[in-house]
Amino acid sequence: MPHIELESHLPGITGLLEYRKDTGQPIRDLTQILMRGESTLTEAERELIATIVSHGNQCRFCVTAHAAAADLLLGEKTTTQAIRDDIESASVNEKMKALLTIAVAVGRNGRLVSPEMVARAKAEGATDAELHDTVLIAALFSLYNRYVDGMATTMPDNDAYFDTLADRIVHHGYQRLPQGYDHLKK
Amino acid sequence: MPHIELESHLPGITGLLEYRKDTGQPIRDLTQILMRGESTLTEAERELIATIVSHGNQCRFCVTAHAAAADLLLGEKTTTQAIRDDIESASVNEKMKALLTIAVAVGRNGRLVSPEMVARAKAEGATDAELHDTVLIAALFSLYNRYVDGMATTMPDNDAYFDTLADRIVHHGYQRLPQGYDHLKK
Repeated sequence: MPHIELESHLPGITGLLEYRKDTGQPIRDLTQILMRGESTLTEAERELIATIVSHGNQCRFCVTAHAAAADLLLGEKTTTQAIRDDIESASVNEKMKALLTIAVAVGRNGRLVSPEMVARAKAEGATDAELHDTVLIAALFSLYNRYVDGMATTMPDNDAYFDTLADRIVHHGYQRLPQGYDHLKK
Repeated sequence: MPHIELESHLPGITGLLEYRKDTGQPIRDLTQILMRGESTLTEAERELIATIVSHGNQCRFCVTAHAAAADLLLGEKTTTQAIRDDIESASVNEKMKALLTIAVAVGRNGRLVSPEMVARAKAEGATDAELHDTVLIAALFSLYNRYVDGMATTMPDNDAYFDTLADRIVHHGYQRLPQGYDHLKK
C-alpha cells in the first residue's frame, strides 16, 4: 500500500505523476528530451541504461517497465536479461558495456565513476555528449527509482500491463497519455 | 577535472545546466516548483531536506550550496550543521525530524522508507503532500548529487562563491540567472 493516498488504478510512477501534475510535467519533459530526443545513442540503448540503473536500485516497477520498452525496441528479450545478469558477457557493443558500467556506478553514487571507467568509454568511441547523457539518464532513473519506491507505490495486478506500457513508451513517448489510451489501467 | 569538457568558470551543477540547456530547463523548472512553489513546508525546511540528502550522498558541491541557502533563510548557521551531525538532537521540530529521516532513507534507496518512518511523520502532523514533496525533493537531489559527482565537476576556487550562490538561490530561485549576475563566477 502506498505511503500516501494515490489513485488505486494507477500503479508505479503513473499515480505519482498524476498526484502532482505540476511537478510531473517537468519530469515528463526531461525524460522525453533525454530518452526520445536527438542522440547518437539509440532509443533502445537509452532504455538499456534506464533498465540497468533500475535493476541496480532494485526498483521492480521501473526495471520491468524499461526492460519491456527495450525488448520492444530491440525485437527480442535476450539482451535486457543478459545485461542484468552480466554486462560484460551481454551481446552489446564495447562502447555500451562501458557506458552501462558507468550508469550502474552513477545509480549507486556519482563518486563511484572512476577516470578509468570514463577512459574505457572514450577509447571505445563514446563522445562527451554520450557520456553526459549516460550520466544524466542514470541520475534521472535514480530519481524515478527513489520516487516510486520511496512512496511504496504498487505493482500492477497483471503482467500484461507492462506490454501496454511499453507500447505506449515506445510509440508515444513520455508525455501524458493521448485520448484513447484510457485502457492503460492496472 | 570533469569527465567531459565543461566551461571552466562554471563549477558544480552550473556548468552542467549550461552544457545541455534543453535538459537543464526542465531540471530548473522542477526545482523551482518543488523548492519555491506553494507549500506548507517553508523554503528553509525544503533546503534542509536538500542539504541532508546531499550530505548522505557526500556531494560536496550540493551540500555546501544548499546548507548556505538554508543558513541564509534561517539567519543562522547552527541548524544545518546540527542536522548533519545528528537529526534527532537538532533544533528542528518533531515533524521535520521525521521528514529528514525519510529523506535520508530515500537518498540511499527508496525501499529503505519504512511504514514506521511514515507513521511517525504522520503522527507529528505531516500531510500526504508534505510526505510526497519530501520524497520527491530527496529523489531530485539524488539526481543532482549523481549528476554533479558522476561528471566529476569541480568545486569553486573560493568559499565566497557559495555566499553568492546562496543569495541567488534565496532571492532569485532556480531559474537561469537574470542580467547583472555575471559576477557569479568561480
